[in-house]
Amino acid sequence: MNLELFVLGTGGSIPLPNRYLSSVLLRRDGEFFLFDCGEGTQMSLRTLNLKWKKISAILITHTHADHITGLLGMLMLSSQVDRSAPLYVIGPPRIEEYIEQNRSILAMYINYKIVIKELDPNNLNTVVWETEQYRIRSFALKHSRMCVGYTLEELLRPGSFSPENAEALKVPRGELWSALQKGRNVVLEDGKVITPEQVLGKPRPGRKFSFVTDTRPIERIQKEVAGSDVFVCEGMFTNEHAQSAEEKQHMTAMEAATIAKKAGGIKKMGITHFSPRYTDHQIRLLEREARSIFPETYSLKDGMHIPIPYEE
Amino acid sequence: MNLELFVLGTGGSIPLPNRYLSSVLLRRDGEFFLFDCGEGTQMSLRTLNLKWKKISAILITHTHADHITGLLGMLMLSSQVDRSAPLYVIGPPRIEEYIEQNRSILAMYINYKIVIKELDPNNLNTVVWETEQYRIRSFALKHSRMCVGYTLEELLRPGSFSPENAEALKVPRGELWSALQKGRNVVLEDGKVITPEQVLGKPRPGRKFSFVTDTRPIERIQKEVAGSDVFVCEGMFTNEHAQSAEEKQHMTAMEAATIAKKAGGIKKMGITHFSPRYTDHQIRLLEREARSIFPETYSLKDGMHIPIPYEE
Repeated sequence: MNLELFVLGTGGSIPLPNRYLSSVLLRRDGEFFLFDCGEGTQMSLRTLNLKWKKISAILITHTHADHITGLLGMLMLSSQVDRSAPLYVIGPPRIEEYIEQNRSILAMYINYKIVIKELDPNNLNTVVWETEQYRIRSFALKHSRMCVGYTLEELLRPGSFSPENAEALKVPRGELWSALQKGRNVVLEDGKVITPEQVLGKPRPGRKFSFVTDTRPIERIQKEVAGSDVFVCEGMFTNEHAQSAEEKQHMTAMEAATIAKKAGGIKKMGITHFSPRYTDHQIRLLEREARSIFPETYSLKDGMHIPIPYEE
Repeated sequence: MNLELFVLGTGGSIPLPNRYLSSVLLRRDGEFFLFDCGEGTQMSLRTLNLKWKKISAILITHTHADHITGLLGMLMLSSQVDRSAPLYVIGPPRIEEYIEQNRSILAMYINYKIVIKELDPNNLNTVVWETEQYRIRSFALKHSRMCVGYTLEELLRPGSFSPENAEALKVPRGELWSALQKGRNVVLEDGKVITPEQVLGKPRPGRKFSFVTDTRPIERIQKEVAGSDVFVCEGMFTNEHAQSAEEKQHMTAMEAATIAKKAGGIKKMGITHFSPRYTDHQIRLLEREARSIFPETYSLKDGMHIPIPYEE
């Protein structure tokens, strides 16, 4: 079951030629989720030359322009793909007003259903999407505007199947093996009942992806992102500009790294949402600063493709 | 006095990786005018690596998303340059609503004055900008939404100075020559009055730039764009897809060429706003079709720089 991240934009506030605004695309088993949608997101998506059919949901962290002004273009682009399922747009208050006002003023052509799920300001820490296999949570951040982070976490999946155990129990290969792998009891020809527990190892953890941008470092983040396989986090400023980070309600790369370290269980952190004051070369400094605290830090780049494999 | 065109986007409806949405930038003697502002305009502008200080006015043809969703980004980017003069935004009705609603919903940071000049639907054929040297006119087009074209036309400039005449009239070189070149009478030492007409040729025409997109071909366009040095015009479809052009209230490249031919005095036409159905290679066909009617047709490309020199 593939889980992959595509980085569409890594710029904060103002885009640069090779650094578009905040947006990442997550693909899980053919299903797509877009996190944030700054201006130019549809251009970045096209550049990837990805075979995408439809996006299930677009999740917006907050309604600052650099995180949302690509949304209208994505909504229009989604009219060019064949879709029957609705497109969900999830985000903080005023996102519905943003979409509806612009749809009306700009007479946008949309040929499918858009379902807008505005978060309840009194209940930002909540599950916003849930299937049998995974769930997406939102949680409150601390920014100059109401802002949330997101995690996509897979539920426990069945333990690994032991052919040795199955053979020892005289379960014939084929349908019965498959049924056991799916967690069902089977009955052998001699009437003996075999349960999945007899042939499966203990349930294995799923994978976890987190997306946090435009916030001061607060304890809640550590708790929510703990155990992430990939933790995408803003690291907007160098330590030298820590005061700018504080004034603008953002984070330095070192503050992001401190969260990653304290949270525990994080395998990789990708920093993003870079201040336009830094050249691509200077972003290496952000990376170095963060690595001094959390060694598994990588600075993201537009166009990056990051597979998120199972642990084993 | 330089006059130059920079092509920021040549795509219609949906952008492609190397074909952003409708926008051109006109530079005249250090002053900038932006015509249309589709998503990604600020990215294209950055890619040019142009030394720009401030844009005097952004002129919008109509409020369809592919012509305007880059405006918010441009307004924010303009907060990064040092400007005291206001930024004018000119366009059809609802443009003020578009800007004000989004400013409010997205809490945009703008540190200068924006003056919005909405066109009067009953008076679309009008001068929208005027200086001592040039004027910009808007005129009504025929689209599925209220839409205007624009021309920037320089006024007549003084005729060329004849040093031979000045010498024959015994006008000493220096200040007196300069005064005559500026159109002032001068008095010689012997009391004789020399008028500019005695040393200047007949007044020479200025230059003219026209921008027309998202319209069916109508006679008014010919009249308004006549005599353009550079006429930028949509040529969205091949002749084979003339029906699409009609249904969607657009033009084929051949319809654009027919306007250019009938208008008279047009030196070059640049076609733009290409349907995303055509590859870059197929755009050559659009160009060929148009050239069969108006040979001085060129298909525009993102990033092109087109100087518009004086005729002589």
